[in-house]
Amino acid sequence: MARRVLPTTTPSRTLAEAIGFFREWGPVSAVGVGAFGPLDLRPGSATFGFITTTPKAGWAHTDLLTPLRDALAVPVALDTDVNSAAIGERRWGSAVGLRDFIYLTVGTGIGGGVFVNDELVRGTQHPEVGHMRIPHDLSVDPFPGSCPYHGDCLEGLASGVAMRERWRRSAEDLNDAAPWELEANYLALGLVNLTLALVPERIIVGGGVARHAGLLALTRRKLIELLAGYLDHPGLSDGFEEYVIPPGLGDLSGVLGASELARGATAGERITGG
Amino acid sequence: MARRVLPTTTPSRTLAEAIGFFREWGPVSAVGVGAFGPLDLRPGSATFGFITTTPKAGWAHTDLLTPLRDALAVPVALDTDVNSAAIGERRWGSAVGLRDFIYLTVGTGIGGGVFVNDELVRGTQHPEVGHMRIPHDLSVDPFPGSCPYHGDCLEGLASGVAMRERWRRSAEDLNDAAPWELEANYLALGLVNLTLALVPERIIVGGGVARHAGLLALTRRKLIELLAGYLDHPGLSDGFEEYVIPPGLGDLSGVLGASELARGATAGERITGG
Repeated sequence: MARRVLPTTTPSRTLAEAIGFFREWGPVSAVGVGAFGPLDLRPGSATFGFITTTPKAGWAHTDLLTPLRDALAVPVALDTDVNSAAIGERRWGSAVGLRDFIYLTVGTGIGGGVFVNDELVRGTQHPEVGHMRIPHDLSVDPFPGSCPYHGDCLEGLASGVAMRERWRRSAEDLNDAAPWELEANYLALGLVNLTLALVPERIIVGGGVARHAGLLALTRRKLIELLAGYLDHPGLSDGFEEYVIPPGLGDLSGVLGASELARGATAGERITGG
Repeated sequence: MARRVLPTTTPSRTLAEAIGFFREWGPVSAVGVGAFGPLDLRPGSATFGFITTTPKAGWAHTDLLTPLRDALAVPVALDTDVNSAAIGERRWGSAVGLRDFIYLTVGTGIGGGVFVNDELVRGTQHPEVGHMRIPHDLSVDPFPGSCPYHGDCLEGLASGVAMRERWRRSAEDLNDAAPWELEANYLALGLVNLTLALVPERIIVGGGVARHAGLLALTRRKLIELLAGYLDHPGLSDGFEEYVIPPGLGDLSGVLGASELARGATAGERITGG
């Protein structure tokens, strides 16, 4: 196995570097890509394989699939970074054997890949759970939110970008209790909504912000308070310690999930279940 | 076809009246029940077929299934009222041919039945989307919410009970603009979260409160504002008029869905799709 971490710069440069890696290390028989989104994953759409309305500078309406396919001349399977991570966790990580679970990432942004009845939720597109609206008490937290689309949606209040804008320091450099108390509160509000809408067996919380020591424990306690005993099933016992958990594959969920995507592309399947 | 509407009084009396109806009108070969919840629908659970933590007086921890099955000696299929309505709408109503949709009821309470990838979301239990947390601006609406579990969750702010408690009049008697403006705002916040988490092709909004003239139109406009162009697919064109719609079966979605449940019980299947 070879691994290379590349900075995300411009689309053409980043894609050229990725292609260079595969040419150098290869030949490869298939490529799996787990990318930030939103992505157009509708087969038959004119912009299939494009990144669509992302606020990430320079990346809106970028074709990811065609350059990789043209340059490497192998099957390329594309999915969101969080779907890819969910696939990885289901194959080897914290979701083995589960039919209904969510992989949530809390990093620069917030997003989630969702399995329901052993299949990825694809609906009209992939879910965008980071942009759910949650209560925001301006008297406690006057920060207006960082989301360019929605202001104080979950991502606008609780992503790494939101933390840095609110506290003028990056999440890694925040060691006081207050920022993490607030963060746990917002995450628990997001998790309560996901729990009620999707009734998963487990929510795996990955991403750079989520790695902060103690954050998941605090989030579990707040989630229990918010649910107020309304839901009752075995998976929620023992302080939700088996319900809200870190990824079993650490920060490799997405990459390993992408290898599953590549395997599916070779076999000509679309990974949704089984 | 025969139809009888019975008041919901105590469990024993209501069930006895329902059994009396079937004996009088029958014999029946199977019974389908769409009931308010939460319900325990986990096969093998000790309380399978029970209403569980409902705040409805006298109905918590009531066995629905056994009395019906014992008295009528036929297969009885039980599901939530909203799952039953979703099944009805999918068979004959506003969701024919859809694989991903939500039936939301806005009446005394708020609840939803959810199809994902052509199957009902069942996870660890049925979804309880009415209890999602949404923004609540106390300076605009100081009402603390009516939900006995969560205060100002979606149901606590926007159900028929919440409207009556807030305005001291029932929804049918509210004709000013302000209450319905507020109601549309809360519903749109609920719909934005459902849209982002479940990416359905359509959300069908039924229930007594939702029948108020103009409410869905106002809700659509607020939903469009809240999404702020973040999602983009053909189903969302034309002012969301095909996205947020009333039930095709009017107030019969649940009853007709229950007839599908009964059909499934006769055939020995569990209705989840296909």
